[in-house]
Amino acid sequence: MTIDVTKQHIVVAQNASGRNMNVPIYRLRGSRPGPTVYIQSSIHGAEVQGNVVIYHLIQRLKQLDICGEVILVPNCNPVGTNIKAGEYTLGRFDPVNGTNWNRGYHYVPDLVADFAKTVTPEESIEGIKRRFRQCLSTAIDEKLASPWGLGLAQQLNLKLQQIAVNADYVLDLHNGPVSTRHIYVPEYAKASATLFNIPHCIFIPNVFAGALDEATFCPWWTLTEAIENSTGRKVNFEVEAFTLEMGSQEVINFKEGDEDAESILAYLNAKGSLHQNAIAPKAIDRVGVYLKNYKTLFTDWGGMVEYIAKPGQYIKQGEPLAQILNIDDLDNENGSRVLSAPCDLIPILHFPSASVLSGTQLYKVFTEYETLT
Amino acid sequence: MTIDVTKQHIVVAQNASGRNMNVPIYRLRGSRPGPTVYIQSSIHGAEVQGNVVIYHLIQRLKQLDICGEVILVPNCNPVGTNIKAGEYTLGRFDPVNGTNWNRGYHYVPDLVADFAKTVTPEESIEGIKRRFRQCLSTAIDEKLASPWGLGLAQQLNLKLQQIAVNADYVLDLHNGPVSTRHIYVPEYAKASATLFNIPHCIFIPNVFAGALDEATFCPWWTLTEAIENSTGRKVNFEVEAFTLEMGSQEVINFKEGDEDAESILAYLNAKGSLHQNAIAPKAIDRVGVYLKNYKTLFTDWGGMVEYIAKPGQYIKQGEPLAQILNIDDLDNENGSRVLSAPCDLIPILHFPSASVLSGTQLYKVFTEYETLT
Amino acid sequence: MTIDVTKQHIVVAQNASGRNMNVPIYRLRGSRPGPTVYIQSSIHGAEVQGNVVIYHLIQRLKQLDICGEVILVPNCNPVGTNIKAGEYTLGRFDPVNGTNWNRGYHYVPDLVADFAKTVTPEESIEGIKRRFRQCLSTAIDEKLASPWGLGLAQQLNLKLQQIAVNADYVLDLHNGPVSTRHIYVPEYAKASATLFNIPHCIFIPNVFAGALDEATFCPWWTLTEAIENSTGRKVNFEVEAFTLEMGSQEVINFKEGDEDAESILAYLNAKGSLHQNAIAPKAIDRVGVYLKNYKTLFTDWGGMVEYIAKPGQYIKQGEPLAQILNIDDLDNENGSRVLSAPCDLIPILHFPSASVLSGTQLYKVFTEYETLT
Amino acid sequence: MTIDVTKQHIVVAQNASGRNMNVPIYRLRGSRPGPTVYIQSSIHGAEVQGNVVIYHLIQRLKQLDICGEVILVPNCNPVGTNIKAGEYTLGRFDPVNGTNWNRGYHYVPDLVADFAKTVTPEESIEGIKRRFRQCLSTAIDEKLASPWGLGLAQQLNLKLQQIAVNADYVLDLHNGPVSTRHIYVPEYAKASATLFNIPHCIFIPNVFAGALDEATFCPWWTLTEAIENSTGRKVNFEVEAFTLEMGSQEVINFKEGDEDAESILAYLNAKGSLHQNAIAPKAIDRVGVYLKNYKTLFTDWGGMVEYIAKPGQYIKQGEPLAQILNIDDLDNENGSRVLSAPCDLIPILHFPSASVLSGTQLYKVFTEYETLT
Repeated sequence: MTIDVTKQHIVVAQNASGRNMNVPIYRLRGSRPGPTVYIQSSIHGAEVQGNVVIYHLIQRLKQLDICGEVILVPNCNPVGTNIKAGEYTLGRFDPVNGTNWNRGYHYVPDLVADFAKTVTPEESIEGIKRRFRQCLSTAIDEKLASPWGLGLAQQLNLKLQQIAVNADYVLDLHNGPVSTRHIYVPEYAKASATLFNIPHCIFIPNVFAGALDEATFCPWWTLTEAIENSTGRKVNFEVEAFTLEMGSQEVINFKEGDEDAESILAYLNAKGSLHQNAIAPKAIDRVGVYLKNYKTLFTDWGGMVEYIAKPGQYIKQGEPLAQILNIDDLDNENGSRVLSAPCDLIPILHFPSASVLSGTQLYKVFTEYETLT
Repeated sequence: MTIDVTKQHIVVAQNASGRNMNVPIYRLRGSRPGPTVYIQSSIHGAEVQGNVVIYHLIQRLKQLDICGEVILVPNCNPVGTNIKAGEYTLGRFDPVNGTNWNRGYHYVPDLVADFAKTVTPEESIEGIKRRFRQCLSTAIDEKLASPWGLGLAQQLNLKLQQIAVNADYVLDLHNGPVSTRHIYVPEYAKASATLFNIPHCIFIPNVFAGALDEATFCPWWTLTEAIENSTGRKVNFEVEAFTLEMGSQEVINFKEGDEDAESILAYLNAKGSLHQNAIAPKAIDRVGVYLKNYKTLFTDWGGMVEYIAKPGQYIKQGEPLAQILNIDDLDNENGSRVLSAPCDLIPILHFPSASVLSGTQLYKVFTEYETLT
Repeated sequence: MTIDVTKQHIVVAQNASGRNMNVPIYRLRGSRPGPTVYIQSSIHGAEVQGNVVIYHLIQRLKQLDICGEVILVPNCNPVGTNIKAGEYTLGRFDPVNGTNWNRGYHYVPDLVADFAKTVTPEESIEGIKRRFRQCLSTAIDEKLASPWGLGLAQQLNLKLQQIAVNADYVLDLHNGPVSTRHIYVPEYAKASATLFNIPHCIFIPNVFAGALDEATFCPWWTLTEAIENSTGRKVNFEVEAFTLEMGSQEVINFKEGDEDAESILAYLNAKGSLHQNAIAPKAIDRVGVYLKNYKTLFTDWGGMVEYIAKPGQYIKQGEPLAQILNIDDLDNENGSRVLSAPCDLIPILHFPSASVLSGTQLYKVFTEYETLT
Repeated sequence: MTIDVTKQHIVVAQNASGRNMNVPIYRLRGSRPGPTVYIQSSIHGAEVQGNVVIYHLIQRLKQLDICGEVILVPNCNPVGTNIKAGEYTLGRFDPVNGTNWNRGYHYVPDLVADFAKTVTPEESIEGIKRRFRQCLSTAIDEKLASPWGLGLAQQLNLKLQQIAVNADYVLDLHNGPVSTRHIYVPEYAKASATLFNIPHCIFIPNVFAGALDEATFCPWWTLTEAIENSTGRKVNFEVEAFTLEMGSQEVINFKEGDEDAESILAYLNAKGSLHQNAIAPKAIDRVGVYLKNYKTLFTDWGGMVEYIAKPGQYIKQGEPLAQILNIDDLDNENGSRVLSAPCDLIPILHFPSASVLSGTQLYKVFTEYETLT
């Protein structure tokens, strides 16, 4: 028994030659009822490993008994994937204006507040979900129809969000620069952190900064709280959204992609997307931090850097992080110097080039982390 | 009688070779008391006309009887000025991460609220100004001393703001892409709009989005309101800040720069910076809009564009704005088409390249504008 | 009577998403015999005015009685057109490796020498042309089939050249940075310089540097000389090729495009492409130089520049070319300085940005020019 | 006993702010006579490991008994090192015009031919060397003094070459994209290939394409042949020049840099630069190819790539090189495909990004290689 895969393409942009730029949408719908899952990859153009993960997910899901529907959108930013500047892909932001490709999704808190007032104590969870989805979807449509138009990144984001808005579980697949695997988890879904085979977890608050995961969970989180605050009723909409960082950018690896796919299937199985499936999260060490303890170490100097501390390593305060070369002092004792860890930490990612100006994000690190069980 | 010009350089960044990048600071201090004026240019690296304006200002101010002090900082972003991508300057944002060079100044509303509580009904305006400046300056210092460091754009912004924070009048000289001269004016200083020789004025509210003008006026505006709200006392701190857009980017013109300098001197004279000087604003047509009526026209198509409507022109609804070429339809009636004005408007600037992707900012235009007198 | 336009698309590249990138080919074939004409535009992605010229050519040719065939290829480099770096188009070279998009056409002098030996004194001009074209076409095919592959720019160039190789008249439409209209003319076709309405003409020798015009005329020129050298026979193959620079890059203008189209029609009419047509070159002033007198003025300093001398202006030795601002000397007599013309000259183009590093091509100028009649 | 290090800075360019850009020159001169050695690094801005190698060389040479002089120029291209496009360094070419930073050195074959005629049978090797160096140095000076100026890359190249022209041994330190260590060796100096600890050697002919190694050895090689051809005299000028590729770009590693320094010291010791020193080349496997067998594998498709074959690996014909993902076929058997080796080969380097357009240099490989002993 294999499941049919439906494929369609949607137009998300037009280039300067007037040609359409398309995104492929793959849909796998099971015969049994179940949740809707939305998974996209490569909204940042250089972060390509997620495309391989989706490849393996499709290969595997075709052989499985899906409950509900899984929607997969690889290479979801055909503009960002195709801007080269030198040999690398200039994929994090629109080269025209610097706009981050992952900051233009839609969320209006007032809309949620207004909607919350329409919820009656008797209304079923399913009923609320259906109405609220309609409300969110309409808001996206209205935004897309802005009479004076919208910027490219926002047009792209909204067209993708219009598909994702109907999903119960939304996974946005990214990569760090040189990076270990890690995941952003909304605090209310902390328990789901251990359902993936991902060693490093960041717990984030109910704050919207434009990304897809936030645009997905902030409305439901806010609605949940509004209902509880006004009526005391505790509801659980079972909507979750995560940003998964699948290692380093500019690289794909099929074998690791298969393991990443298995990690995601473990989560989906736990959430009821698969019928009678034994796949489960692995027994690996998992570490978590709250966002406020996920620190970015900026330099206040420029120079050339060896990244001694590797992503995922446990580093003690005072141990070396990096060694810096000073090109004008190669004949004296300042020719190189070592930068030490200001506290116990785990580097999660570092800058991908040895050459840094002052003000560079050298490392992002876990501090005050906890073991997850 | 000529005034001495003091020149110093401050280090604002280090490049990847470890070399310091400097910004020149020119100071002209008169023998009479008077306001402090701060003028900078080229925080966006391709917006270079302001450097010529500062050149002419220095030439002229040397011959004038200055009251107080004028501080001039040309080429205030040596990083942005020197990033080429092709023949043009990639000057609006940090090429590493897309950060707009004009969005990292410091303003914390809570700080103002806390300060307002310390103001007594008896405290003199001058006393409040002195204390509040100290408070703002300390906050900038503390931010600059962040234990994990700061991004390059923010480091640069704060080092400049630390100088500007002591000024009564702050002018940030910019350029549009292909642009007529225009100015951003905080609503409370609307009367100052006619003190410059700038035909197009945009009145902006008390909202902070990271720019220097906002970072300068928002604290004082907010403090003014807080004092009035809590005690009913109406104070006027006589602090004003403007973003002046001196025509088009990538171009300098000495003759126009001299006229721009005269325009600024007219404002400074009106504000008491010059002793017994006859220079006054010219009798030109001036038009103003509120920010909400300053519209950006985005495309939802890609193609090649002739910009028919020129910056500064009065365009009636239905008149042509642009003609678009469709490369794949040159043999039929869709080979080109005309885009018309959706309402009466004045184009202020347009995109500087004929080649546009969908989602491009084609024009920024005044709608619902008023004549200023 | 209108002529049918045949349109096809050929694939010239694939992007990183694996999508085909197409070039449109428009063909207009008359019922009468006549020459084959090949016209392409925008091999450099930011040089877009030629696309408008082709638009107007198609509109006009549809109404005319064509002899032979006219092949038009607008937007012939879909990769270069779509690489943005900031608001401008990074269109002159492949962003991955710096390869100029107009340097990978095919020409092997030895091939011509070998072919020349096969020409008998009795062979007709038409016969030689047919055989030589076949020979050139085969060589392009073989190059395209290189067992280890070819670089992107060369693949693109060869696919276009494979169409152009069959033409008698080849026009490659370009733009300068900020530029007056000018044309590159092979010395042997000097008489054709006055058939266009283009005021500035550069006469170039039989030297191949990779461009389409050279790749087109060098083989025929070399063959002509080889036949004359070996047998004394003077042949005229009536094959000509030109690079036309239609003003400034990054800009399109429909009205000027119509005039440019008329200029090209005048040339085509003179060459027998149009039946009983009165269109003729205009009586304008035309100036010519030999390539060795077409000078590039590089800077040995960096700074900010006003381009005082405008493209097309007659400048006398010692007259000002440019005024340069020195940011660190605004308080003294070195704040600005003037660069003067080292000899009598006509600026043809200048750098499009006010900000220049040392070693910048500030101006390209005609020296030792002559009036054409 | 330690040797004094002399440090000076030379100005090689000016940026758009008008500021000088400097290159550090370190000189170590021994008390004994001996050859002059010139070593530079980072002419391509992203190829930074050579700077660490020079750091270690200086540390070690300070402790050694040098014969003659060693001149070291790290970070020799301060422009290229500081052009960022995204997080990476756009260091291979001038971002303004695409000019490769390593193609503007000076070599004029006619100059050598003319000089050869002045050599008498009696003239000593040392006498010829002194006169020829003077001749080459004068030619560089004359080129630098071109009345209409020179491009930035060429100005930089010539200023460096003016120092290198006096050296007997010239080493230009580079990196590949993702690369194993390899070295370019002129065929006449093939015996020197085994004096370095570098496993992969490419033997190159007497052809000038603009690089420093060629600009150094082509004149001497050509002169040697000219003297032999005209008089039968066999001379050996003992001038050698190499391009050393020290692994991958965008990375520095201090430990590997120390090993690289030792490798270079082994060569210098063999050439008489060190007094009574035991350092010698290591017994490692070395493989060589002639340049014609050093193949570049270009793609004729675009897509996303896993580089299966690693630099330095021995690959048999038919073994997998790469696996390619096809984003639009993830639901069928074309979702991924494998690219196989067309013959036995050793990959030396591969493209540093998973995302490739058609026409990308996927791999550079040794074919028809030989073991060196």
